[in-house]
Amino acid sequence: MNVEVINTGTELLLGNTVNTHAAFFGHELFTIGLRVARQVTVPDGDPIRQVVQEALSRTEVILITGGIGPTTDDITREIIAEVLDLPLHFDQSVMDAMAERFERRGLVMRERNKRQAMVMRGATVLPNANGTAPGLYLPAHNNGRPTPHIFLLPGPPRELHPMFRNQVLPILRGILPDGIDLVCRLIRVAGLGESEVEARVGEQLLAIEGLELGYCARPGEVEVRLVGAAAVVGQAESIVLTLLSENVISDDGRLLEEVVVAALTERKRTCAVAESCTGGHITNRLTNVPGASQAVLAGFVTYANSAKTAALGVPAQMIEEHGAVSAPVAVAMAEGARRVSGADFAISTTGIAGPSGGSTEKPVGTLFVGFCGPDGVASAREFHFPTSRDSFKNLAAQAALDWLRREVIATSVLPPGASAV
Amino acid sequence: MNVEVINTGTELLLGNTVNTHAAFFGHELFTIGLRVARQVTVPDGDPIRQVVQEALSRTEVILITGGIGPTTDDITREIIAEVLDLPLHFDQSVMDAMAERFERRGLVMRERNKRQAMVMRGATVLPNANGTAPGLYLPAHNNGRPTPHIFLLPGPPRELHPMFRNQVLPILRGILPDGIDLVCRLIRVAGLGESEVEARVGEQLLAIEGLELGYCARPGEVEVRLVGAAAVVGQAESIVLTLLSENVISDDGRLLEEVVVAALTERKRTCAVAESCTGGHITNRLTNVPGASQAVLAGFVTYANSAKTAALGVPAQMIEEHGAVSAPVAVAMAEGARRVSGADFAISTTGIAGPSGGSTEKPVGTLFVGFCGPDGVASAREFHFPTSRDSFKNLAAQAALDWLRREVIATSVLPPGASAV
Repeated sequence: MNVEVINTGTELLLGNTVNTHAAFFGHELFTIGLRVARQVTVPDGDPIRQVVQEALSRTEVILITGGIGPTTDDITREIIAEVLDLPLHFDQSVMDAMAERFERRGLVMRERNKRQAMVMRGATVLPNANGTAPGLYLPAHNNGRPTPHIFLLPGPPRELHPMFRNQVLPILRGILPDGIDLVCRLIRVAGLGESEVEARVGEQLLAIEGLELGYCARPGEVEVRLVGAAAVVGQAESIVLTLLSENVISDDGRLLEEVVVAALTERKRTCAVAESCTGGHITNRLTNVPGASQAVLAGFVTYANSAKTAALGVPAQMIEEHGAVSAPVAVAMAEGARRVSGADFAISTTGIAGPSGGSTEKPVGTLFVGFCGPDGVASAREFHFPTSRDSFKNLAAQAALDWLRREVIATSVLPPGASAV
Repeated sequence: MNVEVINTGTELLLGNTVNTHAAFFGHELFTIGLRVARQVTVPDGDPIRQVVQEALSRTEVILITGGIGPTTDDITREIIAEVLDLPLHFDQSVMDAMAERFERRGLVMRERNKRQAMVMRGATVLPNANGTAPGLYLPAHNNGRPTPHIFLLPGPPRELHPMFRNQVLPILRGILPDGIDLVCRLIRVAGLGESEVEARVGEQLLAIEGLELGYCARPGEVEVRLVGAAAVVGQAESIVLTLLSENVISDDGRLLEEVVVAALTERKRTCAVAESCTGGHITNRLTNVPGASQAVLAGFVTYANSAKTAALGVPAQMIEEHGAVSAPVAVAMAEGARRVSGADFAISTTGIAGPSGGSTEKPVGTLFVGFCGPDGVASAREFHFPTSRDSFKNLAAQAALDWLRREVIATSVLPPGASAV
């Protein structure tokens, strides 16, 4: 079954916004065995008409993003109705949902929001939990002629992603022809480079017939992608898990921070974080995980030296003697974070993210990660990530979180009812 | 002059690689007054044929990325030659440059690399300083019929970007018709919804002839896009700045956190952040800005109640009496962050990000933001953002940072040489 993606949005063609829609749809559709045959981006407004007309006779599914908002350049709904010659009607339930949303937020609904309550004949409304514009699903065959299944979806990712996962994917699954039975497994690996991962597992995986194999390197981790029939993927997965053992972060798509929070929660243990160069990135990632408040007691972003002393008790003399970017300071930060917060585990980072601030002895990219465990023993490790400021924060966070993950997992799970305190 | 972009690459449609080409071309072309009218992504191999044929009669410039490498699925060169009926010939100078590159890196050139030395009649070779595949430029009009200017370019950004800037842009400038003089201005607005922004400025802006107007809503802000001749955009911009006044974050594309760090640095002032529900998101954003260490002294992610007391001195009794999510606690957190860090300004957040943890009195989405200024006076504001955990963190961070921005900007700039301490 052929899927084409049409993205409307002038901002996607002006260079200010990177279009992540193609990657998102590609990734999500793959989980049900579908692929994107073509993706097109056009500016807001009329250009979408021609692209839709071209796609109508070529594809079975069209996913359209953008142009269903309240402003004058949002005309996707009207164009689809016109191209397929379908009348639009006012839908009171859509209007009520919008009004309720506006009221809940203490905002005034404008006359122009009413346009968002217009629905074309035969379309199903897809409620939008995160915005005002509902999505629309127009099943195949309209006005007695063959047309694709057409989905009109909001452009902002925070609205699009949950709507697609919760509402569009189930519909697509329902209209899929039988016989597609692909399984896709993503295994996240830490502590090894892409070529090292391939060197360890590649030969055995390539020998499996019917397996589609892919590697994708991301900052501080490698994703191994296994696609094929369930039995084939199962066989491949057990090879990867055996050969890469504790380097495997997850085999179910979970992120490193999700694995850390789950491992802590399961053990009724807690952690704290002391960050200098990562500037809150680690704590932010940990607290992105729902339920993190059970496991993450506190984070200290001690950017200034005085803050390292005031908040974590790092001796000023130690900073003067060794420098803020040093193993002793990383150790003292981790110890301080554990002591002040009362957490079981603490990790710390201190380094030079750049672009400036480096020296010959400690160039940009130098990083010390500190760790302090439930026994109160602390240590530090040195890393070098000479890269951009952005990537440095990412890589440093991966290194610290992966250390914490390995240590927490090595801790035994407490019996039910017992407490770690 | 119309420009279309065609990206070939299966990886761009499988969800593992985000296609940054559209944003890159959009940004670069805009500097010479050109825009991308359409961008298409197709898998490697034959699908590019149809897309090129469609574009031939529609556009003056085609930029194609990908499919000019050495492997069997790299057939862009051959397809263009076939579609335009142009013979390919072997170019010894391309071959020599490749051989030299392989030798320099101590690598063996394969037989299949020879395909990369094939050049179609009339094409100019664009040397590739960062890879083996040279680009190709085929000027308009071939075989006696009107055809667009066609550029075949490498897919990897590190090869594409310098080739485009150093070789393609100068060619495009040379073939541009005179009189193109477009300016693009992005104005970021905080504290108002998209429809409210349009209600305030839409009518006056729509009355300006020759102005292209767009709105783009992001979490906690709205982007107003003004495009047109310099005089027209200038007129529109002054209307927006006047009508939206202090709601304008920036008119040069800068992010809220960049504006905050710049405003602090310019005034030689410092800030600290105390975060509960935003979990480090605010401090992480501030420290993403290069040079943030001058302005951001510390961040405290006091997730647990005990951490609020231990790290910031929030009285345990206050938490018990009012709850951790309350105005008095937000105030005490801001005061504590300012006191412990010694910063001039402090902001704080405490709220219920969800998905669980809400009550009838304080439902999921409840937020208190605290602020403490250089005079030591603190206050709190209440917000309600009933949305996903992710969006909640974003919206809460916007609310807190925007408050800080307004307060810092209201502070006078110190004379050169003076210090705020």
